[in-house]
Amino acid sequence: MKLGTLKSNVKDGELVVVSRDNKKAVRVPSLAQNLQQALENWTDCAPRLKEVYDQINRNEIETFDVNEESFHSPLPRAYQWLDGSAYIRHIVLVRKARGAEPPANLKTTPLMYQGGSDQFLAPRDPVPHIAENHGLDFEGEVAVILDHVPMGTKAKDAEKYIRLIILVNDVSLRGLIPGELAMGFGFMQSKPSSAFSPFALTPEELGSAWKDGRVHLPLLSEYNGEWFGHPDAGDMHFSFHELIEHAARTRDLAAGTIIGSGTVSNEDESKGSSCLAEKRMLEKISSGEITTPFMKPGDTIKIEMKDDQGQNLFGTLFQKVVQSEVTEG
Amino acid sequence: MKLGTLKSNVKDGELVVVSRDNKKAVRVPSLAQNLQQALENWTDCAPRLKEVYDQINRNEIETFDVNEESFHSPLPRAYQWLDGSAYIRHIVLVRKARGAEPPANLKTTPLMYQGGSDQFLAPRDPVPHIAENHGLDFEGEVAVILDHVPMGTKAKDAEKYIRLIILVNDVSLRGLIPGELAMGFGFMQSKPSSAFSPFALTPEELGSAWKDGRVHLPLLSEYNGEWFGHPDAGDMHFSFHELIEHAARTRDLAAGTIIGSGTVSNEDESKGSSCLAEKRMLEKISSGEITTPFMKPGDTIKIEMKDDQGQNLFGTLFQKVVQSEVTEG
Repeated sequence: MKLGTLKSNVKDGELVVVSRDNKKAVRVPSLAQNLQQALENWTDCAPRLKEVYDQINRNEIETFDVNEESFHSPLPRAYQWLDGSAYIRHIVLVRKARGAEPPANLKTTPLMYQGGSDQFLAPRDPVPHIAENHGLDFEGEVAVILDHVPMGTKAKDAEKYIRLIILVNDVSLRGLIPGELAMGFGFMQSKPSSAFSPFALTPEELGSAWKDGRVHLPLLSEYNGEWFGHPDAGDMHFSFHELIEHAARTRDLAAGTIIGSGTVSNEDESKGSSCLAEKRMLEKISSGEITTPFMKPGDTIKIEMKDDQGQNLFGTLFQKVVQSEVTEG
Repeated sequence: MKLGTLKSNVKDGELVVVSRDNKKAVRVPSLAQNLQQALENWTDCAPRLKEVYDQINRNEIETFDVNEESFHSPLPRAYQWLDGSAYIRHIVLVRKARGAEPPANLKTTPLMYQGGSDQFLAPRDPVPHIAENHGLDFEGEVAVILDHVPMGTKAKDAEKYIRLIILVNDVSLRGLIPGELAMGFGFMQSKPSSAFSPFALTPEELGSAWKDGRVHLPLLSEYNGEWFGHPDAGDMHFSFHELIEHAARTRDLAAGTIIGSGTVSNEDESKGSSCLAEKRMLEKISSGEITTPFMKPGDTIKIEMKDDQGQNLFGTLFQKVVQSEVTEG
């Protein structure tokens, strides 16, 4: 099934069930006030939501027309956002870009950081631009939303905790990353609020495209209205199952935890990229010169994913960069 | 005033107002269901909570007897937990312990990491011990709970967003830190759930001990029933005001954000320490040999703070290490 969250006057928004074709939706206040509540009560709640979903798709229930502009991220805020980096080519290229070595255990231990989750951007929200030297970039990713995961869960047992799949724009400030990582405590200032796709899908909704803890479909990015990339999201070195094992090694993960894949990236250069940092590094490698600047006010990024019939699955992340009232320097 | 959260059958617990002497409390369901809700509605809610607090202290209202065992951390879960490291001596000693250099900008830019906040331990909860080579340690800290802080807030304007002050045991797995930090993405597996003091105090409740964005009182630690340290928490190199400016540089901070001071530590060795890593490093420096092991099942840590009349301010963090059902190796 397909769920979404309408913006409302409460921080967690209002849970809705969305039709398979993204055109119609139904409010479900009697089942759950918001998605966090549904996740904390999934065993009872999911079958009822699924019933509504089936009724919508069979035209058996009164619906309203979907306007994606009115949707917030499926979880407008979360208790936990952990972002992995499971595409090896992305790690190698962005480290090269900042003159850092890939970690020695690149292929045996997933990279993962604890991200800020206190307030996410909506899928159509503007991205604030503070200063040019912050090096504003987008990062197209896939992510999973989890039920409660007990500490010590292994990859082979992780599938059953994956409740929903979403897309992410993990907004990154490349200019602040080297200084911040040099201090040794990970990202904070360099990773402001991320935005997520309007719709969240259960794994079964993806059919055979969901396999081995990976989404085997291209992630489509359009930058300033032009094709930017369509790498296969299934090319993850570590599956979501392995990312969950890594995250749960020393603690439980609460229901509603989001785990991201990291920037989707393939070895095949004809597939393009899902962030500017990679494109810039490839320019430098091929011509010695970086020609693509980071994002500036007015630039737009569109991120979506289609099934093999061309049906838009998660709705469209579409964000425009706007000058922030907060400035520096 | 003094607030607390009773454990209950809901994840956010039940908000209570606690008497100045920690002995009596009153439930306040008509004012706010939980502390997060009170923080999101502070302007309206705080004067009413204060009225209840005054009535308790004047014996004008029906109360129940406080049993600290029944208290959860003031926020049993939070949307954001950012932990600074504002005591320079702690940074220098723990980096020396793991053979790492202090950052070049040690005294000009605060160290801060994004911590896990999806489920905290209660102040009397056991701390799980998974494996001896994880190097289980406690870290005694002070922290502030904030109202919504707008992006770009400067230190000079930060005081007005500080709503409550609490103590922290920031549980740390020293054995996992070097490997994790070497990967460059900060702490995750090495920082499992933290625990907070039973009671949260408004800054004015500390009187003159709250000054310049610092708590000028000793933090008392007892390890296995013996004195372990009483360093002055006021000896922060960066004040909470400066930590807030750092955290809000590129984003808003949602109401309910917790910012920690980092392990309280003074240059004066007679004041002891607030974590085992420091004591171990001092042993190594003075005798060449580390004699204090990390925590093992059965060990206990008590953390509290008293005012100059000897009144316990925040209640008592008291945690025992227990063998986890999850094991490794």
